[in-house]
Amino acid sequence: MTNGHVDLIRRSAALFDEVVVAILENTEKVPLFSVGERIEMLEEAVAGLNNVKVTKFAGLLVDFAEQVGAAVIVRGIRAVSDYEYELQMALMNRRLSSRVETVFMMPAEAYSYLSSRLVKEISSLGGSVRGLVPPTVEKRLKKKARETRMP
Amino acid sequence: MTNGHVDLIRRSAALFDEVVVAILENTEKVPLFSVGERIEMLEEAVAGLNNVKVTKFAGLLVDFAEQVGAAVIVRGIRAVSDYEYELQMALMNRRLSSRVETVFMMPAEAYSYLSSRLVKEISSLGGSVRGLVPPTVEKRLKKKARETRMP
Amino acid sequence: MTNGHVDLIRRSAALFDEVVVAILENTEKVPLFSVGERIEMLEEAVAGLNNVKVTKFAGLLVDFAEQVGAAVIVRGIRAVSDYEYELQMALMNRRLSSRVETVFMMPAEAYSYLSSRLVKEISSLGGSVRGLVPPTVEKRLKKKARETRMP
Amino acid sequence: MTNGHVDLIRRSAALFDEVVVAILENTEKVPLFSVGERIEMLEEAVAGLNNVKVTKFAGLLVDFAEQVGAAVIVRGIRAVSDYEYELQMALMNRRLSSRVETVFMMPAEAYSYLSSRLVKEISSLGGSVRGLVPPTVEKRLKKKARETRMP
Amino acid sequence: MTNGHVDLIRRSAALFDEVVVAILENTEKVPLFSVGERIEMLEEAVAGLNNVKVTKFAGLLVDFAEQVGAAVIVRGIRAVSDYEYELQMALMNRRLSSRVETVFMMPAEAYSYLSSRLVKEISSLGGSVRGLVPPTVEKRLKKKARETRMP
Amino acid sequence: MTNGHVDLIRRSAALFDEVVVAILENTEKVPLFSVGERIEMLEEAVAGLNNVKVTKFAGLLVDFAEQVGAAVIVRGIRAVSDYEYELQMALMNRRLSSRVETVFMMPAEAYSYLSSRLVKEISSLGGSVRGLVPPTVEKRLKKKARETRMP
Repeated sequence: MTNGHVDLIRRSAALFDEVVVAILENTEKVPLFSVGERIEMLEEAVAGLNNVKVTKFAGLLVDFAEQVGAAVIVRGIRAVSDYEYELQMALMNRRLSSRVETVFMMPAEAYSYLSSRLVKEISSLGGSVRGLVPPTVEKRLKKKARETRMP
Repeated sequence: MTNGHVDLIRRSAALFDEVVVAILENTEKVPLFSVGERIEMLEEAVAGLNNVKVTKFAGLLVDFAEQVGAAVIVRGIRAVSDYEYELQMALMNRRLSSRVETVFMMPAEAYSYLSSRLVKEISSLGGSVRGLVPPTVEKRLKKKARETRMP
Repeated sequence: MTNGHVDLIRRSAALFDEVVVAILENTEKVPLFSVGERIEMLEEAVAGLNNVKVTKFAGLLVDFAEQVGAAVIVRGIRAVSDYEYELQMALMNRRLSSRVETVFMMPAEAYSYLSSRLVKEISSLGGSVRGLVPPTVEKRLKKKARETRMP
Repeated sequence: MTNGHVDLIRRSAALFDEVVVAILENTEKVPLFSVGERIEMLEEAVAGLNNVKVTKFAGLLVDFAEQVGAAVIVRGIRAVSDYEYELQMALMNRRLSSRVETVFMMPAEAYSYLSSRLVKEISSLGGSVRGLVPPTVEKRLKKKARETRMP
Repeated sequence: MTNGHVDLIRRSAALFDEVVVAILENTEKVPLFSVGERIEMLEEAVAGLNNVKVTKFAGLLVDFAEQVGAAVIVRGIRAVSDYEYELQMALMNRRLSSRVETVFMMPAEAYSYLSSRLVKEISSLGGSVRGLVPPTVEKRLKKKARETRMP
Repeated sequence: MTNGHVDLIRRSAALFDEVVVAILENTEKVPLFSVGERIEMLEEAVAGLNNVKVTKFAGLLVDFAEQVGAAVIVRGIRAVSDYEYELQMALMNRRLSSRVETVFMMPAEAYSYLSSRLVKEISSLGGSVRGLVPPTVEKRLKKKARETRMP
């Protein structure tokens, strides 16, 4: 989770009545942070936004959207490579459910160069990610990096 | 105005409380159809949608959006070339007004190859544009083409 | 194999005298379906096309093309990311053999959002892929998914 | 017409039984060279290719393709901006006629940076276009440039 | 000229011994500002940079670069559409002169959405361009807009 | 390392006083060639260039650039997918250090289709990579391929 994600959640919360931030429980990948840790971090980061709820889901995103009665999937877009994949997914999701529409929003341009991949690379190489991620994420990344380097 | 535009207006009308379709009065270009004709055609095409209003505006789009109290500018996106220009405009509009957010939506993929430019080209070369534009536009394009070819 | 691939094979079969669908035997990756299974599925899917032959190959594609006397490599293109990589490969293949030309064709736009990756994701998350892949592939994907989930 | 175009015609002539190079008679634009001049130049450039015919057409390209019994429209592609527009046109042409298929081919990479626009710019600024266009075009461009600069 | 251009000139001046800002004298287009006005504005904008010189040129850019002994052409890049055209030009310029190399630099991301076209549009529609262009340009744009609207 | 990389190093060496070619010591990936082998190969390939030094580094590239007093990071760009990622990295690096500027240069167009990934694929499938990589790399790739196939 980067400040770009938080920026998008804020913008979504300003436009829509209720925003559900949904984290996929992926049993195949071993992510840097567990789903539980990611929910905790997101909840800290969106603490001030009353119409935002953080939760996890399994299975297809459109199925989850229908379950919680969401009319819209919000996706952030920045670069072309993003956009191609996002377009594919949005067309596929429209086919899987005609009741859920995908809308795209842009993060602030200050975050246009931010990606989770770059943040992880910088952190793993010992660089500072202050200002790129919320303070709670920065703290935890540092802790992870320390643990990883220990023998 | 193509069926792609009408499709986007329908999708917007399903998501938002009120949709204002705004046509720029551009005093410098001489368009194929006058602003009056374009408002008429759009009104016929969106006749069944009760929360859609068609109007014209002059000056900056963000200023108009603020005047009518719009929180969102909806833009359609398809291809990469679209996207680049749309992104620039959206970032610029965000700078001009922080009260108006741009969101992007996709037309049905059946309309993904449609552009006003292609429709005009086909019509001017004597091709049929049935199914590409609303019936009212098709009729008027034919009439224009006949008038243009007359001596 | 998706319906997009089958669509491209059909289009190729309509243009060229003889079409050879060639599957790379890759000893390093462990794919979802074995080469044998993939040949079986493809043969079922193109059963009605008399000038189409399905086979496997090892080594470089251009070498195989020269062996079977093919003058053309047909590749499908959709999005920009596709296109970049396809262009690189085509220029490289031209360098490796000047006797084989690469031509690009588009699948029907109904399949423009289809990718093997998305199909696999949907299937592994329990979603239906009916209409996205030939019936024979759908049946086998379901069987694979059942086996994977068993203890 | 650049050497990139000639290269594509050569490649097409090697793959297909018969190639028709078709120039649109556009009554609205005043091009640098008349349709007659362009046919002359193309005929000189493809003189050695026995299965290539140069001609002009009016109206829609797909209608012309059907008239001459062409099964394929060959288009050259290089860059992304090209590709987007070409894709739109190809999908539109497929809709206008299901009997004509568009295939894309790449010019030799030595011509990948060539565009008619750049060639015209260089020539009009007094630069040499030797090697970028066939000799017959080079000669005529020089003559045009001399005429334009005369009082 | 936008603040994005000024930003790039500053960055170039920090990297290279001497920077020549060259404005093409184009006799065919009637630009918003004359070449004389543009030189004046640029000179005001880069007043503090001692190794920057503003001048005009006619003919090909590479010829001019060779005349003034420049080893490098610096170009700004932002978006994909930019990049495609820039790449074409750079490859062409390399062909026209092997003594001049093109290097690309990025403006500050605050200017990534800025283009001369957008600035002109905003100004002509009565919007403020403060912060988008140097003060001297802003003043002159306002004056032009007043003159244009006068009867 | 391909001939495209060597071409870029040559071009950089012609523009800048001193060029440091820096190889990241990545402890997580097991590359085809060790860092030691890669330094050896690069040193052989740039043997004639007196202002080029080959070295390895750990940690962030910008930190290394600051340590060796580099004012510029040179990156090669070819295709769009390249460009997107390169832009992200360059903006991120600018944020991490304002003293280091990223400039982009193009390899010769003969190498525009070259990528390490394609070279590895061709070599592992038994194809010849002569002309794509320096002779020293070609020899070592062949040796690796022989070793891999041995029982």
